[in-house]
Amino acid sequence: MLVSSVPLPTLRRLPRYYQYLARLRNAGQDQVSAAHMAEVLGVHHTQVRKDLAMAGCQGRPKTGHKVAELIATIEGFLHWDSQSDAFLVGVGSLGTALLNYPGFDKAGARIVAAFDQDINKAGRKIGETLVLSMDKFTSLAERMHIAVGILTVPAEAAQATADLMVGSGIRAIWNFAPVALDLPKGIIVENLELFTSLALLLRRLSDSGSAAPES
Amino acid sequence: MLVSSVPLPTLRRLPRYYQYLARLRNAGQDQVSAAHMAEVLGVHHTQVRKDLAMAGCQGRPKTGHKVAELIATIEGFLHWDSQSDAFLVGVGSLGTALLNYPGFDKAGARIVAAFDQDINKAGRKIGETLVLSMDKFTSLAERMHIAVGILTVPAEAAQATADLMVGSGIRAIWNFAPVALDLPKGIIVENLELFTSLALLLRRLSDSGSAAPES
Repeated sequence: MLVSSVPLPTLRRLPRYYQYLARLRNAGQDQVSAAHMAEVLGVHHTQVRKDLAMAGCQGRPKTGHKVAELIATIEGFLHWDSQSDAFLVGVGSLGTALLNYPGFDKAGARIVAAFDQDINKAGRKIGETLVLSMDKFTSLAERMHIAVGILTVPAEAAQATADLMVGSGIRAIWNFAPVALDLPKGIIVENLELFTSLALLLRRLSDSGSAAPES
Repeated sequence: MLVSSVPLPTLRRLPRYYQYLARLRNAGQDQVSAAHMAEVLGVHHTQVRKDLAMAGCQGRPKTGHKVAELIATIEGFLHWDSQSDAFLVGVGSLGTALLNYPGFDKAGARIVAAFDQDINKAGRKIGETLVLSMDKFTSLAERMHIAVGILTVPAEAAQATADLMVGSGIRAIWNFAPVALDLPKGIIVENLELFTSLALLLRRLSDSGSAAPES
């Protein structure tokens, strides 16, 4: 099924369902109804049913869903049952946090190497991942057929680093730099916009009235 | 102007405009047209004009906008010219990264204290921020009238920590835990969904064809 045929909001909700289902499984619960998931997750129950159907989950109106079955189906649909190898560039505080962050392999990405322009960082290991110098990037990316790049460099280095990634065969960039990248058609980008998210939070807080931030 | 009167997509785009404008300013550029911004940022030019107008920027059809004026207006509209004090809970890899991340003060939030349930971390300083033990959370939050909580604890601790925040007077939570929080009405939450963002990237990559992840 092509992504174009699955609405983006569905793709955004499926990982939330997944995480909730994983919690149920860890708590030892075998069965769950779409209605219950809808209530807990604050999504309308017809929407939950539609989303699950789009992911290929079979409806079971009377008995409810088997938790393990739902998990396996969503994992397969999101390709979380397989892994993409990724290179990370920018071993600053955010890059280091991602290298230490648990659960990426379960979410379908394995960071197989990290890179930084600071040659003093080369040779270090962060978590399980070795840091290499930038001059090794292209040859390694090509040799290992790396398709995913994780961009955690400062804003001013983001475009040049993204260009290097694309020039090395990378086709999907997870961008943490607060910069809109200018990339060739066909290159896939997901921007993780920390500052935008914070801005929204503060703006909504301020609009909610009683606690305008102090000047 | 209430947030309800400003479309969410506009609120999401304004920080992007801001970051682009800041780059122009740093490069010494004084003037910019909405058409130019539209082209660089990949947003339709009528949309850029609408967004800027909603933020209170005056249109200048012939001469273009003054970069410094746009920056100041957007800063004011997003309340980035003032600061909200925030408490962060969860000094793991992600919390540490945020404490070390440059630019939060400019984005309107100042992390004035961090907390962790590991009492061995209490007393440490990360960046400029002191780590305190959890038993100080409520009294300090109340005394300092903290309105913003940053939640970087593991998934299984997220709900209880959020409840503690709300019980201590916090009204806006920036949630990094991959969990949908169940909170009283009126509490503002922004979820920063790392795994969702990664899942979308990988799904789109896989749908784009030639590089299905290896099983």
